[in-house]
Amino acid sequence: MNAPRLPSTASSDAVDHSITPLEGGGLLSVPGLRGTGVACGLKPSGSRDLALVVAREPWVACGMFTRSELPAAPVVISRAHLQERPAARALVINAGYANAMTGDQGLRDAQRMIDLVEASCGAPALVLSTGVIGVPLPMDRVEQGIADAAQQLAGDAAADALLAEAILTTDTVPKTCAVEVAVPRGDGDETLRFTVGGMAKGSGMIHPDMATMLAVIAVDLPVSPGPLRELLGEVVSGSFHEISVDGDTSTNDTVLLLAGDRKGKAVGPGHPAWPALRAALLQVAESLALQIVADGEGASRVMELQVEGANSDADARKVARAVAGSLLVKTALAGGDPNWGRILAAAAVAGVALQSDQLELQLGGTYAVRRGAPTGVERVLLEQAMVGPRVEVRLGLGSGPGRARIFTTDLTKDYVAINADYTT
Amino acid sequence: MNAPRLPSTASSDAVDHSITPLEGGGLLSVPGLRGTGVACGLKPSGSRDLALVVAREPWVACGMFTRSELPAAPVVISRAHLQERPAARALVINAGYANAMTGDQGLRDAQRMIDLVEASCGAPALVLSTGVIGVPLPMDRVEQGIADAAQQLAGDAAADALLAEAILTTDTVPKTCAVEVAVPRGDGDETLRFTVGGMAKGSGMIHPDMATMLAVIAVDLPVSPGPLRELLGEVVSGSFHEISVDGDTSTNDTVLLLAGDRKGKAVGPGHPAWPALRAALLQVAESLALQIVADGEGASRVMELQVEGANSDADARKVARAVAGSLLVKTALAGGDPNWGRILAAAAVAGVALQSDQLELQLGGTYAVRRGAPTGVERVLLEQAMVGPRVEVRLGLGSGPGRARIFTTDLTKDYVAINADYTT
Repeated sequence: MNAPRLPSTASSDAVDHSITPLEGGGLLSVPGLRGTGVACGLKPSGSRDLALVVAREPWVACGMFTRSELPAAPVVISRAHLQERPAARALVINAGYANAMTGDQGLRDAQRMIDLVEASCGAPALVLSTGVIGVPLPMDRVEQGIADAAQQLAGDAAADALLAEAILTTDTVPKTCAVEVAVPRGDGDETLRFTVGGMAKGSGMIHPDMATMLAVIAVDLPVSPGPLRELLGEVVSGSFHEISVDGDTSTNDTVLLLAGDRKGKAVGPGHPAWPALRAALLQVAESLALQIVADGEGASRVMELQVEGANSDADARKVARAVAGSLLVKTALAGGDPNWGRILAAAAVAGVALQSDQLELQLGGTYAVRRGAPTGVERVLLEQAMVGPRVEVRLGLGSGPGRARIFTTDLTKDYVAINADYTT
Repeated sequence: MNAPRLPSTASSDAVDHSITPLEGGGLLSVPGLRGTGVACGLKPSGSRDLALVVAREPWVACGMFTRSELPAAPVVISRAHLQERPAARALVINAGYANAMTGDQGLRDAQRMIDLVEASCGAPALVLSTGVIGVPLPMDRVEQGIADAAQQLAGDAAADALLAEAILTTDTVPKTCAVEVAVPRGDGDETLRFTVGGMAKGSGMIHPDMATMLAVIAVDLPVSPGPLRELLGEVVSGSFHEISVDGDTSTNDTVLLLAGDRKGKAVGPGHPAWPALRAALLQVAESLALQIVADGEGASRVMELQVEGANSDADARKVARAVAGSLLVKTALAGGDPNWGRILAAAAVAGVALQSDQLELQLGGTYAVRRGAPTGVERVLLEQAMVGPRVEVRLGLGSGPGRARIFTTDLTKDYVAINADYTT
């Protein structure tokens, strides 16, 4: 269970490829994909709530889904489809209704969405949903939405913006990212160029193991299903599994990775473009994950917590998640209060043995604790570390090799206001 | 790991003893105990912050302490003393400073508090602390406080009120309970009468496994150390382990149980008074636990969640704790929002296998879900279940024998306000 380290820039891979961000790019920056977002009356606000993405031909596809014991109907259906055949040509996503806890009717509705999309846009199709749990989808509206969207497919930036908007729920901003990659001697001494693009939604129920988060990432390169699944696991470990907003895991979480649209030999671990592909996917996924955490419901501040010196990465991760999930830590973060005792108190109940005399804690580079004892540093210095929009905390547990990183938000009154009456 | 069921009234034990609540009673209702609370400058507010309890002679004593990997100095010291000798004649408790993460100095300070109390009030003594983590105790003030308190010991209701007040931190009200017990043929055909009394503090960091919670319960009956420890375990399982406010576990949690002051044969499992003793202790502990949860930081509403039909009590407890710890459930509770999907979504990630077609969910007696499907009951009926100060939720997982109960609070803006700047 060693999580891969994210390269902070592509150069850390020490290879000769280049990865260039595409300003304002998203999923539809990837050549071969078209899409759009429409409003069909699923959100009470009347804003766009149904997204459709269609490829020129079936692409190789794989997904990671929620670990909930009560997965939503679209998760059940799409997972089964991918197990049968790791491919997708079209993808329909609705917001407003999660289609979770909706029984057999929900399964029929999810399959019907796939059937409608396959009939109008080509097969195979997948379906994702997000929104309120336990209320059946108004299928007449969904059918109209699919029909409308299928008429309006486009591959330009305008369509990309409508697409990213239509998958949002309590999010305040769309989340997209795209990069262009050039590998000088990718294939037969010719420069190989490709694009990685993606979009995501999520701002509540965010926690490692993917909580009410949807993300779709695509690349216009041929990759076989096995290597693609491997890449997806690595990419999620180093991005979406490193963020936490409120510790809740949803019935609908899904990350999809699509690859295709180009003829030729499949790109796998031995291919000269493999390191560039991996780095570019990580970069896009990390960007989407950080956009989600920064848009955390009611969040005013993000904490980046590094845990080091644990006996294993798994131990470090347990401690990091316990601290990131502590309400007392998250409220102190909201108040800009350097109450570091709460960080250690939360770490101490993570289920990991601690040596109290080896603990080290830094807030924004200033030591609050060294060798297990408070440094007695002036409070004003610690307060300075807490004032900005991003607070860096380093927690050393000892001299072991285990490390973990997590990004979490503060818990504010606005979080409570947003969630106290979401269905009403 | 079968948690005992709490008798809702003493009569459920089907025995001929009587248990009578003592209006306004507390720890000092127990004959043989004296105490008081004084202000010695540990709380910035200037209110009482040091409590002292003294018995006529050493009583049998046992304790349950935090499972934190970083237990506070008073926990380390008092636990070691009880392991050496399960007895206490005096008990000192300070609020304002947790004496946690204070290194060797903290251990020396905790021992010094014991030494001072033993010198003025008799040995053996124990020490408990609650308050801010990581700041050394101002020992000059503590010493003055112990000296003052030792001068003012009394056994009346006025002293009892000062005592219960001095152990509070963010609590808004003192928490006390006492009952008188009569067992008609307790000892040689004579009616045996005894008193169980207790006090507690806690309103933040409350979670099963005891989070920043201090409680002291005493009974004026001789009980041997082994049976007393057994009773304590049962009592805590059926009371303090069934409440959750914010999921945090503190460095200082402690429950102490004292028994003594009377000559004669020790009361053990075979004694005619044993069932009455057990029932009275449970009644007092449950009362204190419910007082804590009702005083949860910023809480406006309490949810009583019953989980039934699990494969085991342990599974039921895991599900109950996952639901009680979910921020989305707790914010819906704050908003009076019958968003029952969140309850099931939280249950579904508790790490317990669920059969979705067997789920049953009731809010205030109204079914929202039967046999895994929404009942489609009118929303207004579910809303009615959410409006009062106490919301009853029953979650059925299947036909297994496993059950659990938990009380939890809603998460309000006031919780955030209270915790955003506790140290400042």
